[in-house]
Amino acid sequence: MTATLIDGKAIAARMVEEVRAEATELAAKGWAPRLVSISVGDVAAAELYVRNQQRQAEAAGLAFEARNYPETISLEQLTGVMIGLNADPRVNGIIIQRPLPTHIPVKALQKAVHPLKDVEGMHPSSIGNIVYNDLALGPCTAVAAVEILKTLPLNIEGLDVCVIGHSEIVGKPIAFLMMGLGATVTVCHHMTRQVAVHSRAADAVFVAVGKPGLVTGEMLKPGAALIDIGINRVEGKTVGDADFESCAKVAGWITPVPGGVGPVTVATLLKNAVLATRMQMDHYSAAFAVER
Amino acid sequence: MTATLIDGKAIAARMVEEVRAEATELAAKGWAPRLVSISVGDVAAAELYVRNQQRQAEAAGLAFEARNYPETISLEQLTGVMIGLNADPRVNGIIIQRPLPTHIPVKALQKAVHPLKDVEGMHPSSIGNIVYNDLALGPCTAVAAVEILKTLPLNIEGLDVCVIGHSEIVGKPIAFLMMGLGATVTVCHHMTRQVAVHSRAADAVFVAVGKPGLVTGEMLKPGAALIDIGINRVEGKTVGDADFESCAKVAGWITPVPGGVGPVTVATLLKNAVLATRMQMDHYSAAFAVER
Repeated sequence: MTATLIDGKAIAARMVEEVRAEATELAAKGWAPRLVSISVGDVAAAELYVRNQQRQAEAAGLAFEARNYPETISLEQLTGVMIGLNADPRVNGIIIQRPLPTHIPVKALQKAVHPLKDVEGMHPSSIGNIVYNDLALGPCTAVAAVEILKTLPLNIEGLDVCVIGHSEIVGKPIAFLMMGLGATVTVCHHMTRQVAVHSRAADAVFVAVGKPGLVTGEMLKPGAALIDIGINRVEGKTVGDADFESCAKVAGWITPVPGGVGPVTVATLLKNAVLATRMQMDHYSAAFAVER
Repeated sequence: MTATLIDGKAIAARMVEEVRAEATELAAKGWAPRLVSISVGDVAAAELYVRNQQRQAEAAGLAFEARNYPETISLEQLTGVMIGLNADPRVNGIIIQRPLPTHIPVKALQKAVHPLKDVEGMHPSSIGNIVYNDLALGPCTAVAAVEILKTLPLNIEGLDVCVIGHSEIVGKPIAFLMMGLGATVTVCHHMTRQVAVHSRAADAVFVAVGKPGLVTGEMLKPGAALIDIGINRVEGKTVGDADFESCAKVAGWITPVPGGVGPVTVATLLKNAVLATRMQMDHYSAAFAVER
């Protein structure tokens, strides 16, 4: 192995420290950040994830309320819940846990979250604001992947970047976040004729597809940075989309899975929570001209 | 010259026919589409443009009201005007004419337009919806450029596409419109090290920078499609971003400037107007459950 291993946990820890300081400052102004998590139905698998999220939020000084609604709730009722949370000044961020029952389309629910409380960065206007280089609340995984690249000693302006995977909440947002930073970006996906032609020309490769072993060492330029966003279970182990062994021999930097993008994604959610709280505070102050 | 010249006027004429039919149908349901154009200050140059827009809208069967506000209007007053237009069911689309006085930031005004009346496709949530492949109202120039490519006998799935220029309302939206159609897209810009490396590998090149002669024949793959979105004045003539003579010798298809993307952009605005009117009709029907 020649690649330097990127320590996602250390990057996340630094971000959480910043979040904690910011949360303390906001609390002193009467704006202690508070997240509400919405899950629907009996989702045992998600429960562990939510509890973990809650633990990390509270460790960073954010209040976290986990709500669970019965499987039988309608989209209209749930939209009503959202309207209530949007209007409640004590709620600063709304997290919609997946999976949702099939009668609740996740996009419809995401659109019901007020953009200022959209800590997951999923609302169409949050996505559009990223395109406009107004980098307030972005989708957590995409923002995390880019934050990781920014820690490396690379000049991003003019950097040739290949993004493999063009999902709406990971691949595409990474693409225009990187464009906004001045990189030359190529986005590949399942219809791309030869992914290796593009990946081998790139100084940095992001992969977010969900296929273990998709990226191999021979698809990389020697010394390139490889940010692996995939999370797959193979023979009881969690692995990314890269064939770690062969990639680590060619890449200059590589993220492990687990311990790479994952922890930074959670830290980004918490960072979004304090950002959202600050935006709401500023919005209230402007709207009501209250001195705080 | 070996390239086939793409006839933007003919494409626009077909689109306008569809708009006219759709407008007639909407009018029969009590929803005759109506556009309101907002310009601010004494803008002689823009006036000709607005009058031309009005003529074309009316020829397509759309009502068009051109409003001019004095230079002295504040952002707050203009936002108030927008709120009024948003609430008025007789207004289906709002066009903000540029240039605006420096004390009126165009983005703030665009955000004040209700997304369902955003016929220019500039609101962050309109942009975000494109990213989400929800291709309702897109930015006119980007949509027009893509519509032109779609008229060519090319299989867009897997097509290698190079977009030169990464502006928020042209280059980037073209990129994800093309991604949504299955193309492999590379976005180049002023920080890209070697644009020719990317453009020469592409089956289709979009250029939207505003620099005459930027793309030359030797930067193209023989037989590629070249969609030229630039509009520049050179020695009293209107030219695009491509060196037409050398490009036409190499490309398979090429858009002229003028007469290429320009007329299709105007037709796209009109198409957005009938789309917006239909969305508003559907929205009202759903909200008030009125049989029409």
